[in-house]
Amino acid sequence: MEKLTILGCGSALPASRRNPTAQILEHNGKYFLIDCGEGTQSRLRENKLSFDKITHIFISHLHGDHYLGLPGLISSMQLLGRTRPLKLFGPPGIWDILRLQFKLSKTCINFPFEFFSVFQEVELFSLKDLNCRAIELNHRIDSFGFVFTEKEKPRRINGSMTKEFNVPHYFMGNLRLGENFTFDDGVIIDNKKLTFDPKKSHSYAFCGDNRVKKDFYKKLIGVTVIYHESTFLHSDLARAKKTFHTTALEAAQLADKVKPDILIIGHYSARYNDSTPFLQEAKEVFKNTVAGEESHTIDFSKI
Amino acid sequence: MEKLTILGCGSALPASRRNPTAQILEHNGKYFLIDCGEGTQSRLRENKLSFDKITHIFISHLHGDHYLGLPGLISSMQLLGRTRPLKLFGPPGIWDILRLQFKLSKTCINFPFEFFSVFQEVELFSLKDLNCRAIELNHRIDSFGFVFTEKEKPRRINGSMTKEFNVPHYFMGNLRLGENFTFDDGVIIDNKKLTFDPKKSHSYAFCGDNRVKKDFYKKLIGVTVIYHESTFLHSDLARAKKTFHTTALEAAQLADKVKPDILIIGHYSARYNDSTPFLQEAKEVFKNTVAGEESHTIDFSKI
Repeated sequence: MEKLTILGCGSALPASRRNPTAQILEHNGKYFLIDCGEGTQSRLRENKLSFDKITHIFISHLHGDHYLGLPGLISSMQLLGRTRPLKLFGPPGIWDILRLQFKLSKTCINFPFEFFSVFQEVELFSLKDLNCRAIELNHRIDSFGFVFTEKEKPRRINGSMTKEFNVPHYFMGNLRLGENFTFDDGVIIDNKKLTFDPKKSHSYAFCGDNRVKKDFYKKLIGVTVIYHESTFLHSDLARAKKTFHTTALEAAQLADKVKPDILIIGHYSARYNDSTPFLQEAKEVFKNTVAGEESHTIDFSKI
Repeated sequence: MEKLTILGCGSALPASRRNPTAQILEHNGKYFLIDCGEGTQSRLRENKLSFDKITHIFISHLHGDHYLGLPGLISSMQLLGRTRPLKLFGPPGIWDILRLQFKLSKTCINFPFEFFSVFQEVELFSLKDLNCRAIELNHRIDSFGFVFTEKEKPRRINGSMTKEFNVPHYFMGNLRLGENFTFDDGVIIDNKKLTFDPKKSHSYAFCGDNRVKKDFYKKLIGVTVIYHESTFLHSDLARAKKTFHTTALEAAQLADKVKPDILIIGHYSARYNDSTPFLQEAKEVFKNTVAGEESHTIDFSKI
């Protein structure tokens, strides 16, 4: 995973300068789009993120601020002549909504477009270097989070040492997998002498609308970067409970149990103009908190 | 009708700085929202147009760039605690779309919300000072335009003359309706001596996606302000025909037959960055053309 771009950190009611939820997680130059609130197409363009590079879309739940930009985005992909396959993961109803809208608008999708229904905690897919699983959240309607986990990365060749020991080129792949090098005379050179440790493998958990339950943190153990909504400040806890949302303080308490490298907060209620008090509240409990902002990016190589 | 505000003059594909179709027609301090493309809520806020003042919404057809902002807007009205009734006029499918989305998101609309299906050319409603009728357009799917016609306005009192003739106050209403004033001795003062002509009654025709047919102009006879889409320049006529759209030149030819005070063009294809060539092309045939732009307003009192 190279980079996370936050395309919207507002919540249901539109607020000045804030879009509803949408994020792009870049992986091997392709994009995973997580949620797709209204205006996502514009934000993608503003950030020069190509629609065509989006290969997977994840919809957390069926509140409008998390998916109302989706029908328009899919239509645009069709109008732009897309041929690349697209996979959609989301609640079963999202497919009904798209089918109805496309039927009524006589829209025909000509690129390969597959839907995978998300209704329980399962691994959604596994690529050679990353897997993705769904985790159940606690909201007014069914809501799922998504955890993307990089598999262990290959060890990195120590060029000067492999040269010194004259390790042949064909063996580099084996070195990356951690094998020792054995000379014809049986002398063994330990892999650690010839390689550096691999780059850190990251994992990213997107936790959209969710009222944090007591044991929820167990689902996130080992995750290095957590996004968790913090719709309200803790002074509005009653409102957070009523609407099945989480406060900045509670998101930080969750992070404090999991100890990720970074906690990102967002999904601020329109009643607040500024994210500063959210950040202050969260940092008191979990120092490595970042306040999500529109078009803010997180570079995983720098974590 | 006081004012028309264009909230979006783009077409299906998102373009920099252009939103898809939405317009606000202000009448007696209330708003008629015509079409509601994605991002309409943001544009309303930018233009400081209160959601609550919207009393009637008109959806021309079920292509996404004309209605995808609607579910979010209705949800926001609900979240904002709206109590004022709302009337929606549009193709039958729009109600199915809203019902499905609200069912899946467990959204309950608590304000009076009525739907009127638009599927033929009829008068949609008549207020004391204005009526609205639907006109059939010619597009890839069923598409309707909306014509708003002010009824004749009352004559305006000539204060100095009514004073000179000592016309009693209770008779002012009769004067506004055009009655002559008769003294007790039978002497009659002609209404025209005591009043000025009424302010001009305007009519506004919104013609969304439409491939202009030969006799289409007959539906607009007498209209004073016409909005007609001009998705393409005439050099792209083949594309206009194929997609059931109209060129700037054709929109101007239509206006030249109807002779409104103003023709407004818009719905520019994303392939053009600038509306200037549209305006030039149209003005050569119909001088009083205005190129619609984002947040552009037309003040009816100045026409």
